Amino acid sequence: MYTLYYSPGTASMVVHLALLEIGADYRLELVDLKTEAQARGDYLKLNPAGKVPTLVIDGRPVCESAALLTVLAERHPEAKLIPPLGTPERDTWLQWTVFLSNTLMSTYRLWFYPQELGAQEHPPEIRAALQRKIENTWDQLEAHLSAHGPYVLGANFSGVDLLLTMLMRWSRNMPRPATEWPALKQLADRVRARPSWKRLYELEDLSEW
Amino acid sequence: MYTLYYSPGTASMVVHLALLEIGADYRLELVDLKTEAQARGDYLKLNPAGKVPTLVIDGRPVCESAALLTVLAERHPEAKLIPPLGTPERDTWLQWTVFLSNTLMSTYRLWFYPQELGAQEHPPEIRAALQRKIENTWDQLEAHLSAHGPYVLGANFSGVDLLLTMLMRWSRNMPRPATEWPALKQLADRVRARPSWKRLYELEDLSEW
Ligand SMILES: N[C@@H](CCC(=O)N[C@@H](CS)C(=O)NCC(=O)O)C(=O)O
Ligand SMILES: N[C@@H](CCC(=O)N[C@@H](CS)C(=O)NCC(=O)O)C(=O)O
Repeated sequence: MYTLYYSPGTASMVVHLALLEIGADYRLELVDLKTEAQARGDYLKLNPAGKVPTLVIDGRPVCESAALLTVLAERHPEAKLIPPLGTPERDTWLQWTVFLSNTLMSTYRLWFYPQELGAQEHPPEIRAALQRKIENTWDQLEAHLSAHGPYVLGANFSGVDLLLTMLMRWSRNMPRPATEWPALKQLADRVRARPSWKRLYELEDLSEW
Repeated sequence: MYTLYYSPGTASMVVHLALLEIGADYRLELVDLKTEAQARGDYLKLNPAGKVPTLVIDGRPVCESAALLTVLAERHPEAKLIPPLGTPERDTWLQWTVFLSNTLMSTYRLWFYPQELGAQEHPPEIRAALQRKIENTWDQLEAHLSAHGPYVLGANFSGVDLLLTMLMRWSRNMPRPATEWPALKQLADRVRARPSWKRLYELEDLSEW
């Protein structure tokens, strides 16, 4: 049994989408970032870093969204969110999942939390550098998808497309949103047409793309 | 058959250590960062981001050190670098591997490459913020290891300890190296006593811890 500690539209989104794709039984627990619920004692017991998401699996709290996507995908092979062990596609899947987490999510963290770089607001040159770093990753992904798309693994949808589309969504109010890259937009359109995406919008009460 | 494109002491180190732990057959190809070999055409064909490492697996190039650790660990279960599918320990392993990659490696990247934040050298307040971010992760790891150590998974060594020890090593010239955290130091001492670590120092001609 799964309990997902989430906040709408945040890093918990990919875990929520994976649960919906799998068709697993789960409970949702809202962590209200507006009231800093993530920094209070009861939540810190589950997630000492005070971040969302946490997935409680049979009573054990597990953190890190990209790890949780992998864990869920592995536990439910019938949903085909991750390719089987020992296939070249699995190596590709792991490569891009780690890349998205290591390069893109970490840069978004700085983009959205200037205090992590010691500022209330980023000075313009830092802002520009972070924007460039994020846009560089869109360039890299666009090159990959143009050559090997439409999905990250090629012809077949998988869990890494959920992670990518969530991260694309976070750019929607940036100077140059990820949907300006055509192969990326095409991938996002396919993912946004899935029942899991639509259901998530209802459950998390999201409106803006 | 494996070919590892590496540079001594860099992110390729964890992949090299994993190959040694496994006892796999592999070839080494030096990518000379001093001459910018990582940014030249033949290497960019393998690794479009121009970074080290790349592991060529049966002719296919795969990137991202934390992904490569996972790939190698999965392909060689007898080396016990990753816990089996469906165990709680595997979830813990994935959580910390992603955490180290997402939180710590990405911050080191900024620490060592100020140009990624648009500067030749970091201004003091950015430097201090990055240092704090790195030291925060040592605090988190120390808390985990004091309660659940001596290894990341508890009683048993695994591949994530290789990743952690490599990342600890990178802090050796920082104002407060990771070895000042006692449970972290103890873990590193154990990993540094392993034959794979000693052999890697010979093969990569490393001296400084
Ligand atoms: N590496 C973590 C990052 C999670 C993260 O940064 N979550 C944000 C929301 S997207 C959060 O919890 N922010 C509240 C805070 O840091 O106080 C993961 O992927 O799970
Ligand atoms: N996320 C990548 C990062 C690799 C990385 O940053 N490698 C550095 C050496 S530690 C590198 O190639 N530096 C040369 C450059 O960026 O030009 C991974 O984990 O493999």
